[in-house]
Amino acid sequence: MKKLAVVALGGNALLRSDQKGTIDDQEANAYYTAERLLTLIRADYNVVVTHGNGPQVGNILLSNTAGNKLYGLPDMPLDIAVAYSQGFIGYVIEQQLRNVMKANDLDRDIISIITQVLVDKNDPAFANPTKPVGPYYTKEESERIGAETGAQFAADPRGRGFRKVVASPKPLVISNQKSIETLARAGQIVIAVGGGGIPQFYVEENKLQGIDAVIDKDLASSLLAVQIRADKLFILTDVPKVCVNYNTPQEKAIDRMTISEAKKYLDEKQFAEGSMAPKIRAAISFVEGTGKDAIITSADKLGIDNGGTRVVIV
Amino acid sequence: MKKLAVVALGGNALLRSDQKGTIDDQEANAYYTAERLLTLIRADYNVVVTHGNGPQVGNILLSNTAGNKLYGLPDMPLDIAVAYSQGFIGYVIEQQLRNVMKANDLDRDIISIITQVLVDKNDPAFANPTKPVGPYYTKEESERIGAETGAQFAADPRGRGFRKVVASPKPLVISNQKSIETLARAGQIVIAVGGGGIPQFYVEENKLQGIDAVIDKDLASSLLAVQIRADKLFILTDVPKVCVNYNTPQEKAIDRMTISEAKKYLDEKQFAEGSMAPKIRAAISFVEGTGKDAIITSADKLGIDNGGTRVVIV
Repeated sequence: MKKLAVVALGGNALLRSDQKGTIDDQEANAYYTAERLLTLIRADYNVVVTHGNGPQVGNILLSNTAGNKLYGLPDMPLDIAVAYSQGFIGYVIEQQLRNVMKANDLDRDIISIITQVLVDKNDPAFANPTKPVGPYYTKEESERIGAETGAQFAADPRGRGFRKVVASPKPLVISNQKSIETLARAGQIVIAVGGGGIPQFYVEENKLQGIDAVIDKDLASSLLAVQIRADKLFILTDVPKVCVNYNTPQEKAIDRMTISEAKKYLDEKQFAEGSMAPKIRAAISFVEGTGKDAIITSADKLGIDNGGTRVVIV
Repeated sequence: MKKLAVVALGGNALLRSDQKGTIDDQEANAYYTAERLLTLIRADYNVVVTHGNGPQVGNILLSNTAGNKLYGLPDMPLDIAVAYSQGFIGYVIEQQLRNVMKANDLDRDIISIITQVLVDKNDPAFANPTKPVGPYYTKEESERIGAETGAQFAADPRGRGFRKVVASPKPLVISNQKSIETLARAGQIVIAVGGGGIPQFYVEENKLQGIDAVIDKDLASSLLAVQIRADKLFILTDVPKVCVNYNTPQEKAIDRMTISEAKKYLDEKQFAEGSMAPKIRAAISFVEGTGKDAIITSADKLGIDNGGTRVVIV
C-alpha cells in the first residue's frame, strides 16, 4: 500500500502579505506551491492537501462589510465566509495542480471537498474569544458594532486598530473523513478541511448550526491525519525549520525533536502563540495519535531529506 | 443496483426573489428544499444534487464591487464568484440535508464537491455574450466600466438599468465526474456542479484558466446525468408543470411530451429564453443521451406520481 501524507498549506501559499491579492497573484502562488508537491507525488505518496484561509477570509469579510455599508447586503457570519474561501481556494489550488500535473506528464486526478467540522457547543473557547478576524476598526467603531451585534473586539498588538475576536474551538469530527481517505488512497489528490473547516455545532438534537468562529487549520489537519491513519503530516510555514530562542543571538534551528522535548519548549514559551505554537501542538497531536512523524517546514523543503523539523515520538 | 437520480435545484431553492437573502432565510429555504428530497431517498434512489447560484452570485459580485470602491480590493472574475457560491451553497444544502436526515432517522451521508467544468475556448458563445450577471448600472457607469475593462453591457429588458453580459459557453467535461458517480452509487448524496460549474478552458496546452463566463446549470447537470448514466434527471423550477401558450387563455400544462414534441414547441418559441427554454433543451439532451426520462417540476412535486412534466424519448 502506498504511503499517505497530509500536507497543510499556510494561507500564504496563495497570498503573501506583501501582495494585494489579485487573482493573478494568487494563481501564480498556487502554481508555485503546487509544484512543490511534486516531490511527494514522485516519491509515490498519496496526498491530502489542507490549507489556511486567513488573508482570503480577511478580504471576504471586508467585501461583506463594504456590501453592507453601500448596498445594505445582509451580514455574513464566519461559517459562510469560510465556506466561500473553501470554494475559492480549493478551486485555485485544484486548477493549478492540474496544470502542474499536465506540465509534468503526471496522471493524478484532483478533487476538492467542502468540509464541515463539528465542535462542542460547550467548548470553553466560546467563553474567551481570542482569534482576531476581519477588518481593523477604530475604537469608537468597534464599540458601536460591539453594542449593536454583541461581537467582541480587541486592540491589535501592533497598534493597527481594533479587530473582532472570535472563539477558536477544538475540532471534533471532520465530515466526509472516510470519503477523503478512500479517494486519497485510490490515488486522487484530495483538497479538504480548508481554513480548518466550516465550524458548526448541534444547537438542538437534530439541528446543526454554523457558528461565528474559526478552527485552527493545523489542528483540524492533524485530526484528519490521525483519523485517516496518514503516514506523515507536513505542516508548511514561512521558515524551513522550527527554531528555539528565535530572533535572539542564541537562535538554533531544530532538525528533530521528540514530543516530550516539544512539550518542554512549549512550556518554556519558546514558540509564539498564533504562529508557531499551534503548529507544534498540531504536530504533537498527530505524533501521539499515530506514532508517525510530523514535519514542520517551508514549501521549498517539502519532502527533501533533512528538510524541516521532524517531530517524533521518541 | 439502486437507481440514480440527478436533481437540479434552482437558485431560488435557497433565496427567493421576495427575500433579502439573510443567512437565516437561506438556511430555512434549504431545509425546506432538502425535505422535498425525502421522497426520492425513501424510494431508495441514489441522488446527486446540483444547484443554481444566480441570486447568490449577484450578491457576491455586488459585495466585490463595494469592496473595490470602498477599500480598493482587487476585482473578482466570475469563475472566482462561482467558486465562492459553490462553497457557500454546497455547505448550506449539505448542512440542512444532514439536519433533515437526522430528523427523519435516515442514514445517508452527504458530500459537496467543488466542480470545475471545461469549455472550448473557440465556443461561438464568446463572440456574443448574452447572459446578464451582477449589479445594475446607469448607462454612463456601464459605458465607463466597459471602456476601462472591456466588459460588455446590455440594457435590462425591464428597464432596471444596464448589466454586464457574459458568454454562456457549452459545458464539455465535468471534473470529478467518475468520483461523483462512485460516491453517489455508494449511497452518499453528492452535491456538485453548483452554478453550472466553474468555467475554464485551456489557454495553452498545459494551462487551464478560469474565465469570466457562466455555464447554464441545467445543461451542465444534464451533461453530468448522461455521463454518470443516471436513471432520471429532475429539473426543479417555480412551476409544477411546463405549459404551452403560457399566460394566455389557451395555456395548457403538459404531463408528458416526446423529445420531438419538445423540439417542435421550442421552434414555435413556446418557452422563454433564459427561463423555461434552457430547461427544455437540457431535458432533451439527457433523454437523447440516455433514453431515460427527464422530469421538469417544482420541488413540491418531486418524485410524486404524475408530478411535473415528463420528457420521454418516444
